[in-house]
Amino acid sequence: MFIWKSRLRWGDTDASGRVYYVSLFRHLEAAEMEFLRDLGYVYGTGELQPVTFPRVHAECDYTSALVNDDVMDIAVTVERVGSASFTLTFDVTVEGRHAARGKVVVVCMDRQTQRSRPLPGKFAETLRAAS
Amino acid sequence: MFIWKSRLRWGDTDASGRVYYVSLFRHLEAAEMEFLRDLGYVYGTGELQPVTFPRVHAECDYTSALVNDDVMDIAVTVERVGSASFTLTFDVTVEGRHAARGKVVVVCMDRQTQRSRPLPGKFAETLRAAS
Amino acid sequence: MFIWKSRLRWGDTDASGRVYYVSLFRHLEAAEMEFLRDLGYVYGTGELQPVTFPRVHAECDYTSALVNDDVMDIAVTVERVGSASFTLTFDVTVEGRHAARGKVVVVCMDRQTQRSRPLPGKFAETLRAAS
Amino acid sequence: MFIWKSRLRWGDTDASGRVYYVSLFRHLEAAEMEFLRDLGYVYGTGELQPVTFPRVHAECDYTSALVNDDVMDIAVTVERVGSASFTLTFDVTVEGRHAARGKVVVVCMDRQTQRSRPLPGKFAETLRAAS
Repeated sequence: MFIWKSRLRWGDTDASGRVYYVSLFRHLEAAEMEFLRDLGYVYGTGELQPVTFPRVHAECDYTSALVNDDVMDIAVTVERVGSASFTLTFDVTVEGRHAARGKVVVVCMDRQTQRSRPLPGKFAETLRAAS
Repeated sequence: MFIWKSRLRWGDTDASGRVYYVSLFRHLEAAEMEFLRDLGYVYGTGELQPVTFPRVHAECDYTSALVNDDVMDIAVTVERVGSASFTLTFDVTVEGRHAARGKVVVVCMDRQTQRSRPLPGKFAETLRAAS
Repeated sequence: MFIWKSRLRWGDTDASGRVYYVSLFRHLEAAEMEFLRDLGYVYGTGELQPVTFPRVHAECDYTSALVNDDVMDIAVTVERVGSASFTLTFDVTVEGRHAARGKVVVVCMDRQTQRSRPLPGKFAETLRAAS
Repeated sequence: MFIWKSRLRWGDTDASGRVYYVSLFRHLEAAEMEFLRDLGYVYGTGELQPVTFPRVHAECDYTSALVNDDVMDIAVTVERVGSASFTLTFDVTVEGRHAARGKVVVVCMDRQTQRSRPLPGKFAETLRAAS
């Protein structure tokens, strides 16, 4: 399983003394990019050059408190690979304690037409193999 | 229905040329605060002084593109009022075109014990009346 | 003098209980955009369509504490208009108390060549008249 | 010299296709925290427990373009250690090309009285030795 370590920063906190819930999405995104890099892909390059990947859905459940300087283990899972979209799930733990579970649904869009289109073939295969 | 107008800013965009999906949550939060102010409440003051309101769930569906300088109408709805939590829904439109639908589940936590507790009575009543 | 009112939001705070210093720059930017709109200009449109305006310098002095829900008065001043750049200054007060003083130096760049070029003539004139 | 590597993320970009200038400050802050950790200090813990460190000044010069996925080398230098404050400078390079130079002035504040006070003795010594 792919796990990305990411440290919460002072700028991620809010006046509650804990992490600002919106900030967590940025760390999930870093985990997504590193997960894809680990599979050999970087958005906007190679086979993925002609397409972009807007999100059509994002969500997160917050299950326990996160604070400044916490080092998170973010486990990334491919939940579903559709014809023109895919879904990633993120489980966030700190020293084994579960802290959050996020999800994004990412759609494949043609850069020229700005319309959704099938995922590039090898990329879809790679995601399926990783799921 | 309560509607909060909020303008998307340059700092809300990303290199896609559109709005960065995470930024939208900040605008939903502004709409939440103004919705509550309209009902007579500000977190951390008055009846709400002894409690805090962490989010246990946040989500958003992105239904059409948003760009820099768009003025959004954010309609806020009370979807559910539980004993110790409540759910707000946000419908975002730009000149009548639907662009996003967000949701947050907010839990009531005692500031001292850091444990969940029932919503303050009048606050719960006010939310129910608004739903 | 042009003054833009902007309310600090929960997401602008950090675990100190005060405003996260980086967040203030986003409010200064909103004030910049509204100042220019008041002069008849929106970046990327009309006379400004062929150019972009990257920042080459940004700074802020923080003179007193800002907290969640503070309504700031942000006064915008044109400090200098050069041939290919201009400097804006921002004075932030809350109910008359000075809280911050920011500055940005903005350079005019040709969108095609990605090199600096003279400010469009009428735009430069308008900025000078406002200084 | 202390150098912290930090990767620019999609969420750090704006519609110019480059990095949003405000985002860079968050990376400088990460470099500051890791620089202090390297010296044996974490804000809010140990000798630094009774004090907080608000910024009274922050600035950045942007000298060349930064884009998504760039890995920055952020070199941290102690520019000055005063009695109740210190100044850090940050030089940002990407593969040897200079991209930005930032600076923060950090003041030492007593957590109880919320007033400035002398830097804790060993901490000041450590900073001076590192400068």
